[in-house]
Amino acid sequence: MGNMPGFVSIREVGPRDGLQNEEPIPTEAKVRLLDALSRTGVRRIEAVSFVHPKAIPQMADADEVWRRAERADGVRYSALVPNIRGAQRALAAGFTEVEVVVSASDTHNRRNINRSTDESLDDVAELVGLLHDAGAQAEVIVATSFGCPYEGDVDPVRVAGIVDRVARDGADRVAFGDTTGMATPRRVREVVTAVRDRNAGIPVLLHFHNTRGTALANLLTAIELGVTEFDASVGGLGGCPYAPGASGNLATEEAVHMLHDMGIDTGVDLAALIEAAELAEELTGRRLPSGVLRAGPRTRLTPLAS
Amino acid sequence: MGNMPGFVSIREVGPRDGLQNEEPIPTEAKVRLLDALSRTGVRRIEAVSFVHPKAIPQMADADEVWRRAERADGVRYSALVPNIRGAQRALAAGFTEVEVVVSASDTHNRRNINRSTDESLDDVAELVGLLHDAGAQAEVIVATSFGCPYEGDVDPVRVAGIVDRVARDGADRVAFGDTTGMATPRRVREVVTAVRDRNAGIPVLLHFHNTRGTALANLLTAIELGVTEFDASVGGLGGCPYAPGASGNLATEEAVHMLHDMGIDTGVDLAALIEAAELAEELTGRRLPSGVLRAGPRTRLTPLAS
Repeated sequence: MGNMPGFVSIREVGPRDGLQNEEPIPTEAKVRLLDALSRTGVRRIEAVSFVHPKAIPQMADADEVWRRAERADGVRYSALVPNIRGAQRALAAGFTEVEVVVSASDTHNRRNINRSTDESLDDVAELVGLLHDAGAQAEVIVATSFGCPYEGDVDPVRVAGIVDRVARDGADRVAFGDTTGMATPRRVREVVTAVRDRNAGIPVLLHFHNTRGTALANLLTAIELGVTEFDASVGGLGGCPYAPGASGNLATEEAVHMLHDMGIDTGVDLAALIEAAELAEELTGRRLPSGVLRAGPRTRLTPLAS
Repeated sequence: MGNMPGFVSIREVGPRDGLQNEEPIPTEAKVRLLDALSRTGVRRIEAVSFVHPKAIPQMADADEVWRRAERADGVRYSALVPNIRGAQRALAAGFTEVEVVVSASDTHNRRNINRSTDESLDDVAELVGLLHDAGAQAEVIVATSFGCPYEGDVDPVRVAGIVDRVARDGADRVAFGDTTGMATPRRVREVVTAVRDRNAGIPVLLHFHNTRGTALANLLTAIELGVTEFDASVGGLGGCPYAPGASGNLATEEAVHMLHDMGIDTGVDLAALIEAAELAEELTGRRLPSGVLRAGPRTRLTPLAS
């Protein structure tokens, strides 16, 4: 298993990536979920996205959600934006960490926003500059890093080249999105190794979906390779509306449960997190896919008297 | 990732462990599923169990299912039995590979059959002798090897001691059951290492449930440790009726999908296996938990024209 890290940093993405891909819920419910997550001990939360309400009605009330949320000390909050208008809204709302997205697959990028990956990278460079000028940090999320539903495999060298480019353009961090759950231990190894080989010197975060059951195997592979930052979504909320066949994100409580069992700290109180997952299930009104939400942690025993 | 094996042997347990833990389906349906699986290229199938029909009505027609099945050349079929009566039925039906179960947890064993683990090990020794006398091979399945829902952690040294005992008693193989999905990469490493350290010289097979999302991470850990035999259940059929909170078995197509992606052969035709999983879903009439059944393999692309 190699040397395991002592701490793994989880970014909770349920309030944004999760809820954005569920049926819309009321503003009040979003605030309740965000507040519950802020009390779990998780250190980072992707809180909202600033997107056009016609494109993504689930985030139409992002400003109000963020204004009403009880922000916790010691939690870093971020927002996702698709363009300059979104970045301006995020900055106006007071965010100091902002994410922008580009797809490693040309076809996927064109299908989503009708631009090539290279054209989007020019836009990203402009956004990074705008965010930095305002004193905020910029993370670039590279979607379809582990495969594209239209093209199939995406060359890890292409992914590494995108990382070089965004690092040169000043991005503070890069995240690799497993947009349609095509990541496997092999693909994780290939992408992480290709990026490492280029030595772009930029922090890396991985974002897995559990579409084909591999999310925790991918996480395990990545921490063996020294990656210590991951996205996860409470209860496994969400998916990707533009990606056919995609199912939910890696459930935060499944990630935390496995990591704690391995003696790796996350700062998260698993019991509080499971309560937040129960709340997410109540608020969305659908059965969420998380096994740890369903069965509880392995340490939850069955009373003999039953 | 270390040295990966070139071949991993999957035993398909859907017809027995799967169907035994679903609502009963007609004999004809069981035969159809068994025949479909025999055509997937999988090398081993757990076909039926010979248990008392009042205890497990799902297997009441085991003799007839087995008689009507079209057995494929090159496939090894096995049956599970709880006692001497079951072993006699399995032998009379022509089985030459038979599995018997004992629980590593005393409490779990007592709850199931009102005997201590040690008492059951005496029974197992008798069963192994009976099977050998009839020219059949005997596998001992050690349930709750990675944890007990009543006791919690089970000492890996205790598990290793049970392996010593059954090896001395002549068992041909031993399997470790993750009865309620308490296995994690850490527990897999501990159990496999403890057993290895005792050097009992007996082939080892692992049986995982995906109760808490860890099944493929456990599989990955085990193959890194050199284990090359695993149970899996088509579509993720089944669970464990005696184990509160347990959910389905590791889905065969999720295991095969990840292994093939790693360049590890299983002999299985994944497309045929997914068809069998679709059949399992049709026959049981419930949505099965397998992600690869739902989304298809990562190589199944989305047409751009859509």
